[in-house]
Amino acid sequence: MSKRAINFYAGPAGLPLPALERAKEELLDFAGTGMSVMEVSHRSKEYDAVHEEALALTRELMGIPDNYKVILLQGGAHLSFGMIPLNYLRGANSADYLVTGNWAEKAYKEAKLVGGDRVRLAGTSKAENFARLPKASEIKINPESLFVHFTSNNTVEGTQWQEFPETGGIPYVCDMSSDIMWRPFDVSKFGLIYAGAQKNLGPSGVTLTIVSDEFLAKAEAQDLPSYLRFKIHAEKNSLYNTPPTFGIYILRNVLAYNKSIGGLKAIEANNRKKGELLYGCIDKHAGFFKPFVTEKADRSLMNVDFFLPTEELTDTFVKEAKKNMMVGLKGYRDIGGIRVSCYNAVTVDNVKTLVEFMEEFVKKNG
Amino acid sequence: MSKRAINFYAGPAGLPLPALERAKEELLDFAGTGMSVMEVSHRSKEYDAVHEEALALTRELMGIPDNYKVILLQGGAHLSFGMIPLNYLRGANSADYLVTGNWAEKAYKEAKLVGGDRVRLAGTSKAENFARLPKASEIKINPESLFVHFTSNNTVEGTQWQEFPETGGIPYVCDMSSDIMWRPFDVSKFGLIYAGAQKNLGPSGVTLTIVSDEFLAKAEAQDLPSYLRFKIHAEKNSLYNTPPTFGIYILRNVLAYNKSIGGLKAIEANNRKKGELLYGCIDKHAGFFKPFVTEKADRSLMNVDFFLPTEELTDTFVKEAKKNMMVGLKGYRDIGGIRVSCYNAVTVDNVKTLVEFMEEFVKKNG
Repeated sequence: MSKRAINFYAGPAGLPLPALERAKEELLDFAGTGMSVMEVSHRSKEYDAVHEEALALTRELMGIPDNYKVILLQGGAHLSFGMIPLNYLRGANSADYLVTGNWAEKAYKEAKLVGGDRVRLAGTSKAENFARLPKASEIKINPESLFVHFTSNNTVEGTQWQEFPETGGIPYVCDMSSDIMWRPFDVSKFGLIYAGAQKNLGPSGVTLTIVSDEFLAKAEAQDLPSYLRFKIHAEKNSLYNTPPTFGIYILRNVLAYNKSIGGLKAIEANNRKKGELLYGCIDKHAGFFKPFVTEKADRSLMNVDFFLPTEELTDTFVKEAKKNMMVGLKGYRDIGGIRVSCYNAVTVDNVKTLVEFMEEFVKKNG
Repeated sequence: MSKRAINFYAGPAGLPLPALERAKEELLDFAGTGMSVMEVSHRSKEYDAVHEEALALTRELMGIPDNYKVILLQGGAHLSFGMIPLNYLRGANSADYLVTGNWAEKAYKEAKLVGGDRVRLAGTSKAENFARLPKASEIKINPESLFVHFTSNNTVEGTQWQEFPETGGIPYVCDMSSDIMWRPFDVSKFGLIYAGAQKNLGPSGVTLTIVSDEFLAKAEAQDLPSYLRFKIHAEKNSLYNTPPTFGIYILRNVLAYNKSIGGLKAIEANNRKKGELLYGCIDKHAGFFKPFVTEKADRSLMNVDFFLPTEELTDTFVKEAKKNMMVGLKGYRDIGGIRVSCYNAVTVDNVKTLVEFMEEFVKKNG
């Protein structure tokens, strides 16, 4: 076997090695069944134990209140972009959207397809290429909104809401695809949280959804096809239809590992350490590494975007990093430069290795 | 490692062992990347090769004409139940549905949520508990229908359209979840085919969709959220959003294995042999095993439902089979009895083992 790569992909992204080793070990014989977990019925007691554990670990790690449902869906954030307005914005309801990046804008546009003018732009930093988050003074929440949608971490641009926006008590609906479980937070302000698993939680093909009973009851979608109704999945404990069993199994493995290393507090400490190392290096060499994000307070601890002095140096950086088994560093196509995605599974040591490489790179090319 | 089980689950179901062994071998190091296939970007060249191979093998094995698109989606047949009417039946179009079983009826009801009276019942055998398919004389196709929806194999009841229904040239839309690729067939009569992977193709969480360019062009859904539009997935080669990469990788492994054993002709020969063995045993002991399906011509080669003389004997049958590592034989909850699901990955030898067990069981209890 070749050496394990250091994975800085933006998603699908690296997973904790013990979660994968566990999967490898039992890939042909899961729970003594003589079958792969992929091959057993989603109604079997063996799969059911995995399903329940994945749900329970999500609750435990995130401290989710009892009046919330945890649902496991498919289709990623993209399907959720559509399900949210289909469930909530086909009647008289309206909502506010904060457009802070590529994906936030997609969520907004998809909602407008269904809700039209009742989907309002509550604030944006688009004029500044999303290189910072809107300031409190730039956000206007309509008190009649059913919810305020925002994107907790902007994967493409590398900004992150360190403190969530003020809404005057209107519940949040939030795309947390790229930073869910990066730290503990108070779930009780949220009507609905959704997150594609493939960044911080597991493989692509699973969408973790957390929704309050109160918000669930407000859905207006009696005539909507059943798969698209959050309520049905909640009532059926995510077994309305065949769930993506293998993906949920890997999610369970990742969450069990996360618990074993101390839960979200320990994970937050690691993430903060990684951020200090990486931004420390960038700021130290401010003449060489130029961050994309203009406000330090808005910097993401999940995706770190920066530029090198020339495109040629950028290419060399990516290529030499790859020779050292560090992959996924090429920036998003619309922005260019370098993007370091350092989700939960990226270790402090991984970032130390990258920072050493960056220091060497400055010495050689700076 | 314990002995490999003989898997008669109705889905998720058994997969070819070589496809799983390949996955196990490279679970931590895929294509020399030092990463799991789950961990690499869906935009990486290594994943792209898998994606393209899965699509190409589907085309090759099924002999799909060039004027058809192959799409890999999520959400299983349940999401397709909704996507089809949302794409085609929100305007003036109408469609005919054949209701031949539990899932066919679900497809019909979901379509009616969107299309109302424009979704017509073209024929059903519900009055006979779906124990046979409707006869030609019982089917009335409206010549104005945009499509005729049917379910090629009724998983719960164990009936299968050995010859597809006559529609007077109106294209089929077909749920092939439980028998896709069981044999070669002429794709050119179909507007759209969809199939959840978890029975004949791979793990749950991947939906194979095959759609003609002509049918794709008839979608009327400009204001539908993007994930729900077949057209967008076709245009983006199933990379509009992050696809379920690991599921598609397993699908690729299964299809590559299917090709290596001689493709769909060889698979059909195996399936027919399995059917002869199983139905042969049932018919031989007609006083002991009572088939659920009343018409021999409608018998499924994928799901074989039968009853034993008493419920007590049924329980004993399931328990003793399990002791012999044969699992998944308990009938569907609404029907009871025994259901033998023998999808492509179930070998002729597996069925021989079951038939020997059945012969023994009759000897002991008959």
